[in-house]
Amino acid sequence: MATLTLDELEALARRALLRSGASDPMAAATARALVAADAQGLASHGVSRVPQYAGFLKNGRADGSAVPRIARERGGAVLIDAMDGLAFPACDLAVAEAMRRAASNGVAFAGVTNSHHFGVAAHHLAPVGAAGLVGIAMGNSPSAMPMAGGKRALFGTNPIAAVFPRRAGAPIEIDLSLSEVARGKIMVAAQKGEAIPPGWALDRDGAPTTDAKAALAGMMLPAGGTKGAMLALMVELLVVTLTGAHFGFEADSFFEAAGNRPRIGQAFIVIDPGALAGRETYLERVETLVAAMLADAEVRVPGARRHDLAARAARDGVAIPDALLESIRTLAGVAA
Amino acid sequence: MATLTLDELEALARRALLRSGASDPMAAATARALVAADAQGLASHGVSRVPQYAGFLKNGRADGSAVPRIARERGGAVLIDAMDGLAFPACDLAVAEAMRRAASNGVAFAGVTNSHHFGVAAHHLAPVGAAGLVGIAMGNSPSAMPMAGGKRALFGTNPIAAVFPRRAGAPIEIDLSLSEVARGKIMVAAQKGEAIPPGWALDRDGAPTTDAKAALAGMMLPAGGTKGAMLALMVELLVVTLTGAHFGFEADSFFEAAGNRPRIGQAFIVIDPGALAGRETYLERVETLVAAMLADAEVRVPGARRHDLAARAARDGVAIPDALLESIRTLAGVAA
Repeated sequence: MATLTLDELEALARRALLRSGASDPMAAATARALVAADAQGLASHGVSRVPQYAGFLKNGRADGSAVPRIARERGGAVLIDAMDGLAFPACDLAVAEAMRRAASNGVAFAGVTNSHHFGVAAHHLAPVGAAGLVGIAMGNSPSAMPMAGGKRALFGTNPIAAVFPRRAGAPIEIDLSLSEVARGKIMVAAQKGEAIPPGWALDRDGAPTTDAKAALAGMMLPAGGTKGAMLALMVELLVVTLTGAHFGFEADSFFEAAGNRPRIGQAFIVIDPGALAGRETYLERVETLVAAMLADAEVRVPGARRHDLAARAARDGVAIPDALLESIRTLAGVAA
Repeated sequence: MATLTLDELEALARRALLRSGASDPMAAATARALVAADAQGLASHGVSRVPQYAGFLKNGRADGSAVPRIARERGGAVLIDAMDGLAFPACDLAVAEAMRRAASNGVAFAGVTNSHHFGVAAHHLAPVGAAGLVGIAMGNSPSAMPMAGGKRALFGTNPIAAVFPRRAGAPIEIDLSLSEVARGKIMVAAQKGEAIPPGWALDRDGAPTTDAKAALAGMMLPAGGTKGAMLALMVELLVVTLTGAHFGFEADSFFEAAGNRPRIGQAFIVIDPGALAGRETYLERVETLVAAMLADAEVRVPGARRHDLAARAARDGVAIPDALLESIRTLAGVAA
């Protein structure tokens, strides 16, 4: 492992993406998002993605020259076309538009179409929380889970995130995907040759399995059974039907280099507490719930750990595996 | 069991509520909602609630003279004060306002404060779907579930519903609560003296239990473990902090006659597909997903069963248990 400051890591990731074909704004927005994930301890969505994204930029699964644009708008509703670029500049535009529109309309819905992997869902809501607004983020992803009762993967693991700013300090940050477990847990079991618990996955024929390798070739199961499947359906419908994006089953896997332009979708909802019960009532209610949660010794405020890790990373930097760092440096054309 | 037409049942429920202290519009809106639940096979949220609601109207936990009003508004955002009445007239007003505002703003958020039990969440979205709009409904309820890792009930079972209209026929209707199982299932096990599976509930001290009676005295567990708890937290925050309503732990149980005015909250989000990717794209995308779902022989379109049951009930009426019918007739002052 090598330790880099966040600035060093961001500059390196940005240069690697630029040299792989991303425009300057696309490389900047993407590097910023990936390094923020590393800083929060979410390495699977951090600069470990640079080689993957670089591959998509080079083989055409992502268009590095894409400039996101407003495709449709009405009051609080706006549709952003990511134009087949990496998702981050389009999501940044969507969130900025949603915040601006929530200020005048009280609420805004920004959809993103023709988009790509959007990383950590909650990351996009950071400016929303910082502005004292409430936000929700959702996205679909290449199909990995069946509908309730189904035997074929239709939905992505479809993350939902939400941010609720507090009177002081880090906002409450909710961020989850709708699969029972992250795919990474099944990969670890497969590498160790261990069985996985029932309820995590189906094999490729849609039969329940505890064989981790069969699970990787098959499907993940939704969290909470039918309820998770229904929520995954809800997210899939919200981010696709309103935006014209691809469903998860129309997007090729990100785990293979080759494939189509995924054209998946995202949606952001921003609400201004000042337009409803008012900012003071909002803050009082949030703090009342936080106090009730923390009266339970085992309970933590969601998002607090990520916030603490990010503060530590800003001070101490982050550790990056040597092989990954080497591959990013090679992409960036920088000697070690 | 006695079979009544939907009109007969609605007239009877309305009269029972009127004579218990509900205003004419409150009795009408409530009776309509309860009978719609019975028609859809959801008896636990149907006219079986009339004696409970009548009790609240009589003991002051609900104000039968309340007239819901717009408390705050800005563009697409509106806050409805239910004024401690039964929830249905306030929710009807909230949904009507949200639909009207989505037409001009593309998206609307209607919150409801000082509210009460709102029955079947998806029921409120029927006019949204009928108008070709997309809708989401959420509500909290008296505390029944702990936060992840917690030992004290903080959140309600917090239903989430969504409606996505189709090109023809019944809309896709998603409707779930965030507990692992409905409380009714635990009550049935307790009555039979049977154990419940691990993962359904905690006892009153917050310890896992398979004893159904201990579970009833304790807490339900969220669906999907931590993920369900995070979603319950999200719903709790959305419907309370933006509206100024009570948290679930501030509202007394509906299973006891005595208690406070619950002052819980609801929220409705309405989105006009015409403001985003457009109505034709929306409908094409919905039908593409439905076709993919139905290619799996075991998969049903959510909401289809309720729709079929409602059509049958409109033709054949619904069967009501004799004891329940007798108690509603007594409240209504009608001889059998």
